[in-house]
Amino acid sequence: MKIWQKNIEVNKGIEAFTVGKDRELDLQMAAFDVLGSLAHVEMLASINLLSAEELTAVKAGLKAIYAEIEAGEFTIEDSVEDVHSQVEWLLTQRIGEAGKKIHSGRSRNDQVLVDLKLYFRSCIQEMVGNTEALFSQLIELSNTHQDKLLPGYTHLQIAMPSSFGLWFGAYAESLADDMELMLAAYKICNKNPLGSAAGYGSSFPLNRTLTTELLGFDKLNYNVVYAQMGRGKTERILAQAMSAVAATLAKMAMDVCLFINQNFNFISFPAELTTGSSIMPHKKNPDVFELIRSRCNKIQALPNEIAMMITNLPSGYHRDLQLLKENLFPAIVSLNECLEMTTFMLQNITIKDDILNDKKYDYLFSVDVVNDLALQGIPFREAYKIVGESIENGTFEPKKQVNHTHEGSIGNLCNDQIEEMMNEVLSQFNFGKVRTAIEKLLSE
Amino acid sequence: MKIWQKNIEVNKGIEAFTVGKDRELDLQMAAFDVLGSLAHVEMLASINLLSAEELTAVKAGLKAIYAEIEAGEFTIEDSVEDVHSQVEWLLTQRIGEAGKKIHSGRSRNDQVLVDLKLYFRSCIQEMVGNTEALFSQLIELSNTHQDKLLPGYTHLQIAMPSSFGLWFGAYAESLADDMELMLAAYKICNKNPLGSAAGYGSSFPLNRTLTTELLGFDKLNYNVVYAQMGRGKTERILAQAMSAVAATLAKMAMDVCLFINQNFNFISFPAELTTGSSIMPHKKNPDVFELIRSRCNKIQALPNEIAMMITNLPSGYHRDLQLLKENLFPAIVSLNECLEMTTFMLQNITIKDDILNDKKYDYLFSVDVVNDLALQGIPFREAYKIVGESIENGTFEPKKQVNHTHEGSIGNLCNDQIEEMMNEVLSQFNFGKVRTAIEKLLSE
Amino acid sequence: MKIWQKNIEVNKGIEAFTVGKDRELDLQMAAFDVLGSLAHVEMLASINLLSAEELTAVKAGLKAIYAEIEAGEFTIEDSVEDVHSQVEWLLTQRIGEAGKKIHSGRSRNDQVLVDLKLYFRSCIQEMVGNTEALFSQLIELSNTHQDKLLPGYTHLQIAMPSSFGLWFGAYAESLADDMELMLAAYKICNKNPLGSAAGYGSSFPLNRTLTTELLGFDKLNYNVVYAQMGRGKTERILAQAMSAVAATLAKMAMDVCLFINQNFNFISFPAELTTGSSIMPHKKNPDVFELIRSRCNKIQALPNEIAMMITNLPSGYHRDLQLLKENLFPAIVSLNECLEMTTFMLQNITIKDDILNDKKYDYLFSVDVVNDLALQGIPFREAYKIVGESIENGTFEPKKQVNHTHEGSIGNLCNDQIEEMMNEVLSQFNFGKVRTAIEKLLSE
Amino acid sequence: MKIWQKNIEVNKGIEAFTVGKDRELDLQMAAFDVLGSLAHVEMLASINLLSAEELTAVKAGLKAIYAEIEAGEFTIEDSVEDVHSQVEWLLTQRIGEAGKKIHSGRSRNDQVLVDLKLYFRSCIQEMVGNTEALFSQLIELSNTHQDKLLPGYTHLQIAMPSSFGLWFGAYAESLADDMELMLAAYKICNKNPLGSAAGYGSSFPLNRTLTTELLGFDKLNYNVVYAQMGRGKTERILAQAMSAVAATLAKMAMDVCLFINQNFNFISFPAELTTGSSIMPHKKNPDVFELIRSRCNKIQALPNEIAMMITNLPSGYHRDLQLLKENLFPAIVSLNECLEMTTFMLQNITIKDDILNDKKYDYLFSVDVVNDLALQGIPFREAYKIVGESIENGTFEPKKQVNHTHEGSIGNLCNDQIEEMMNEVLSQFNFGKVRTAIEKLLSE
Repeated sequence: MKIWQKNIEVNKGIEAFTVGKDRELDLQMAAFDVLGSLAHVEMLASINLLSAEELTAVKAGLKAIYAEIEAGEFTIEDSVEDVHSQVEWLLTQRIGEAGKKIHSGRSRNDQVLVDLKLYFRSCIQEMVGNTEALFSQLIELSNTHQDKLLPGYTHLQIAMPSSFGLWFGAYAESLADDMELMLAAYKICNKNPLGSAAGYGSSFPLNRTLTTELLGFDKLNYNVVYAQMGRGKTERILAQAMSAVAATLAKMAMDVCLFINQNFNFISFPAELTTGSSIMPHKKNPDVFELIRSRCNKIQALPNEIAMMITNLPSGYHRDLQLLKENLFPAIVSLNECLEMTTFMLQNITIKDDILNDKKYDYLFSVDVVNDLALQGIPFREAYKIVGESIENGTFEPKKQVNHTHEGSIGNLCNDQIEEMMNEVLSQFNFGKVRTAIEKLLSE
Repeated sequence: MKIWQKNIEVNKGIEAFTVGKDRELDLQMAAFDVLGSLAHVEMLASINLLSAEELTAVKAGLKAIYAEIEAGEFTIEDSVEDVHSQVEWLLTQRIGEAGKKIHSGRSRNDQVLVDLKLYFRSCIQEMVGNTEALFSQLIELSNTHQDKLLPGYTHLQIAMPSSFGLWFGAYAESLADDMELMLAAYKICNKNPLGSAAGYGSSFPLNRTLTTELLGFDKLNYNVVYAQMGRGKTERILAQAMSAVAATLAKMAMDVCLFINQNFNFISFPAELTTGSSIMPHKKNPDVFELIRSRCNKIQALPNEIAMMITNLPSGYHRDLQLLKENLFPAIVSLNECLEMTTFMLQNITIKDDILNDKKYDYLFSVDVVNDLALQGIPFREAYKIVGESIENGTFEPKKQVNHTHEGSIGNLCNDQIEEMMNEVLSQFNFGKVRTAIEKLLSE
Repeated sequence: MKIWQKNIEVNKGIEAFTVGKDRELDLQMAAFDVLGSLAHVEMLASINLLSAEELTAVKAGLKAIYAEIEAGEFTIEDSVEDVHSQVEWLLTQRIGEAGKKIHSGRSRNDQVLVDLKLYFRSCIQEMVGNTEALFSQLIELSNTHQDKLLPGYTHLQIAMPSSFGLWFGAYAESLADDMELMLAAYKICNKNPLGSAAGYGSSFPLNRTLTTELLGFDKLNYNVVYAQMGRGKTERILAQAMSAVAATLAKMAMDVCLFINQNFNFISFPAELTTGSSIMPHKKNPDVFELIRSRCNKIQALPNEIAMMITNLPSGYHRDLQLLKENLFPAIVSLNECLEMTTFMLQNITIKDDILNDKKYDYLFSVDVVNDLALQGIPFREAYKIVGESIENGTFEPKKQVNHTHEGSIGNLCNDQIEEMMNEVLSQFNFGKVRTAIEKLLSE
Repeated sequence: MKIWQKNIEVNKGIEAFTVGKDRELDLQMAAFDVLGSLAHVEMLASINLLSAEELTAVKAGLKAIYAEIEAGEFTIEDSVEDVHSQVEWLLTQRIGEAGKKIHSGRSRNDQVLVDLKLYFRSCIQEMVGNTEALFSQLIELSNTHQDKLLPGYTHLQIAMPSSFGLWFGAYAESLADDMELMLAAYKICNKNPLGSAAGYGSSFPLNRTLTTELLGFDKLNYNVVYAQMGRGKTERILAQAMSAVAATLAKMAMDVCLFINQNFNFISFPAELTTGSSIMPHKKNPDVFELIRSRCNKIQALPNEIAMMITNLPSGYHRDLQLLKENLFPAIVSLNECLEMTTFMLQNITIKDDILNDKKYDYLFSVDVVNDLALQGIPFREAYKIVGESIENGTFEPKKQVNHTHEGSIGNLCNDQIEEMMNEVLSQFNFGKVRTAIEKLLSE
């Protein structure tokens, strides 16, 4: 049943094809759809398009539906097309004709838009929270293992001494930079498209500034054509921000898979967190990290997938945009799971001691010997030649002590400054303001 | 000639294959390489690794090279591998042994890193400037043509009245959101990797905070392993920010190609800005916009290309990263050209008057009629049915007047607020601080 | 329950994370898993690793399971990890210890590999069938509407006369070329990986040539390391072949969305195959084609997604590969639906007559006038100038008759030759041989 | 100078922007442009649009230009737009008015199309040749080193014994499968678009079958609208075929970078084929393979880039397509270089003996022990448990002998069959027929 349906019955196959997975995916947006409607009706009343009595009835009805959604009791019936129709239909069933007025001055287009923006805003909060947890875990591990050395590779060749302090800390700092992109995505999400109707505005005297405040948005998507243009663009940019976090996780997972390999043998995990083989009884496979890597690489491909689906569409709504939910919604769940799983696995990581005692790592220390000569006044290029020859002749003798003191080096990790940098980014997400607005909207 | 070369001569074919286009591409980074060295030697002197006399000589030499670069007189010789070697070699030729010391406490890895960050920072400034110019042009056109209506389409079907005020303004506002991503890229670029050496730090007592200040960076990439990890990541994120601007331009170009098509016929350009056909004498083809679209779609594919080249590389430097310059450098030039060309073309656009007089656009006004009924108290769904039937019966009579008053609608474009939003983002790029630092570095 | 499980219990969260959607997706491969096992046990018996009695019992058991799968009565229980374990477990429940022997000389790795190859082979057959049906529909429409002219555009500018005969026929011929890629994918799928075990072969004296014949494969993946390397590669190549078909469908859908737009107004569909708008009663939106376009563009992004997930993985199995099913399986279903839906919609298309009577299309005929002059002996460049001037002066008079006679032109569509070309490709898929082999395997 | 130019002068900046890199890139197609014209004029004469004298003069002129191109003496002047104009202009300079007639019955569109198809056909021949050389090198190495064992990994965990015979042979067989895709691309390239004019055919009574024969094409692109649609599509499919080869090379390069790493230490290359570090005197970096990996991953991203640039363009020529040359032409050169360089490097590879003597590889043999027990009649799952427990208890004793005999295993590489498979694919490229046709065209 489409509540806006004309008399002609649409072919059933067509309906199945066009509805697609909307009912299933829309469920995730249901609470936000109700929030959008609550703000909209408040505004409608303020411009006298809803009477005080109607407003009271509609708000009570919407809040009841919100409670049902929160309690997991809300479903989208097979005869109903999408979440917007389901909410309106329920409301009209319960409070009568006034229920139909929640659609006044709106189009499904701006209803979807505002639902998506509210939903993404909430998803970003969850992803940021999970990133913060992983960040803290990494900083803690960096501090704990700051004295444990491991070989540093360039070109995958043994190069210079590194440390687990550096290794964990590097991924922490990486997440801090990733949050800059997430912040950009958040700012772009946190603007109100409601009131843009089908993308060309409305002849109703809507007060978009009011709904902006009620929903805790930072600003409006002012231009209504642009508000509509935000569909697809918002998804692509959010996916790009997610891809930054995903790239960090995937890289770390690649390192883990190498480091747990028996030829490296730098780290291990408890047997119950690895998996075995159906034909090789000795295997302890790092499946979790392989799957994190794979899932995160899939997320890395997501912005391109979205771009491919929206490129060269002229301005104005196209049904193509509906399908973006199918890509993005599960990716958000997947990224959150990867963040949580990485944190969990790292809580259980074991670091091998004395890795550098192995003779094959002796050359790691050649640079420091070159530098020592240089500090004694020998030009760098000369010092380099001297050490190079001692290596060539097999007379090279490493001094296996690392005395790196500058900012960000083995002996001076600057984890406090990295935490400060993270906090500086995180402080720019105004989740508090959003929560206050939503609580007010639900309580009044 | 590789100045760090061992005695074994590397196969010539190997050398050609590995050097690739470095000489050509590195030229674009030459000025920044010298700036990085100026800051580095200043710092080396501060920790007594360079005498006062050496510092004076080195700085004079470097500034002379900088001047030659600015004058277009600098080249990378075929016998020299890259820009870093060329600068060091020139310097040593001119001032003797002290010239070799500019490499002390550095690796080519962090030299490339700092060059790239300085170069990208400068490129971002240019792209932001060009975006700002296009933004102003769009706002001006939006204000000028605010009363000229055109059909608004959804599903590419005639939907509701739109206006050139909305159309131009939408792309202006789009650019404002795009600048949020560019700002994130800028913040990530504007951190100092110098001192990370080959990605594992140095045993020299470097003062990385000092070089950070001297080069006008906002912050450090603290962790040296992360500093190295920024290679590839920085490029990918910059490409993502560029792809946002590119997507806006490409979409506008698609609209232009439709609107100039004879079936739409909404806009035109002077004959000297279009091109002809070798077999059809009447053609006036919008090649410029087709090429903007194509170039920008190519840029949209760039972040994916970079991701494909760096995905699943474990931490630490890999030579793979060298090739990213080949993709990104020309893309930056291309995006700047597209921005300039779009601005230029729009300065010459002609908008057709009275587009909506054509009878086929009558249905555009059906929503407003529905809304009028709704404002008279008829429930929206009922009003919709009444108008739907009048259309079905052929009795529909449009009232061709648009009275949209809410924020961001035809009658209330909010261009001032959009400009304010743009300015708010732009004010967060600290180009002034950077310029001051660089001027100081070059003048002292 | 993992039937190969060691005593240590794997963390439940880990298990949920690693199993992922395997149970759901594996169901689609269940029948093929049984076929693979039937061939494998036949071969085991031939090398005396299974007694005649065991073989009889195992085959009867497997065929019973096959029948249950065909009847939709097979499920993978929550306590069981994947389809392979479920089949083995069922079998062992029913026929005792002999059931366990079906795993002898195999690894889950080559079991998945052979299942995937058999499944993809079958999917290709279905996609080829649906493509063939659409091809026939297009040829029929091309023949039916060969005399209906429409404007041909270049640069989206009115260029030269085209026809619906050409338009439909072009997409038919496009599908014929697409089948070349599908054939390549088929050949690559249709090689037997069974016997490669975990990717390094087996110490059992397997007869891989026998299983190749039993399963109707064309050839073997000989090298066992390469057989394993085919995982991911096969998926990527199949996705590329699918992307070719998808690109053809998406392009046609874009044309349809333009042609149904009121500014073009070349074609239409019955109201029951279009959808309406919740606020604009006059709309008849081409949602089906927008969704075909969007789904097909998503499929166009699929090869890149797969590449991103497998790039830079060293040789040997990685768990990453498991996730490829999540992308590819639904894409196969989606492409089949798009093919069917396009065929269905085209059965209901209405073509407008006399499109070219509109005066704005007069210039379409300028090239033919130029050519007429050229055929009269005036050099082409001169003729071009003469007609160009007549257009410029407004004196151009079109002769609205198209007399194109060469191969593939409006007057000589060559649809027979195109059909022949299609049949030539289709004849190279040896679906008949495959069917015969499978029937024999199931009947013996 | 555009030889088809109208009187209005096109803005210089516009011209620079629209011409782009055409002059530089078109040079690579120059010889093919002349071949296309030779066939076209032969056909024009056959339908009496060129006199016998004109034909003689034009052919002599074109052959002279062809010789100049072959001798490297041909350039595209700055005042000339593209290769087609340059050839026509040269010809007209030399033989007078008849030179202009080579454009009769053609458009630049089908001229570019036929040039590209001829050029790609030739490029495919070169890529196939280079692939064949690498294939032979791999088979030779596989045969030579068939007895040298190395660890086989799954999940990057030590799994089962492998061999260099398997490792080299796997990549050989991979190339054989890749050639299936290349063959599909070849078949799609090897069809004649000439005569499609601007994509809608011509009123000239062209004989397209004749030009098809003269140019050695297999078939026609019959439908002229499809012929034009081949632009972009051909490029995308060729890029997909190239990406298959690139993926094989990149994977092998990743293996090489791992195997040369000191923790694996399985292979090495002479010092003159590796590169050093500016600060670490002991380094011997595998830059060549890192660059092969990076270049090939870039090629893997190419099909997506092309798709992004052409997706959602309606049918008919768009200027967007011009830019595809910029991506694809250098990629072809790059892939050929990577193929040659891989072959060269492999000629110089050194394989370490006795890798498996290291105790850490003992568990490689556990599967064979399980299998031995199974062959003695113990059910596989039981045998697995017994060996698993001996590993757990530290009592596991490997029997370091590999006795794998089945097809494609360590002891039975089937390299002859793999060569036969390769030859079967290669025999389907009809390069000989093409050569004969081109020689005939140039000699007559």
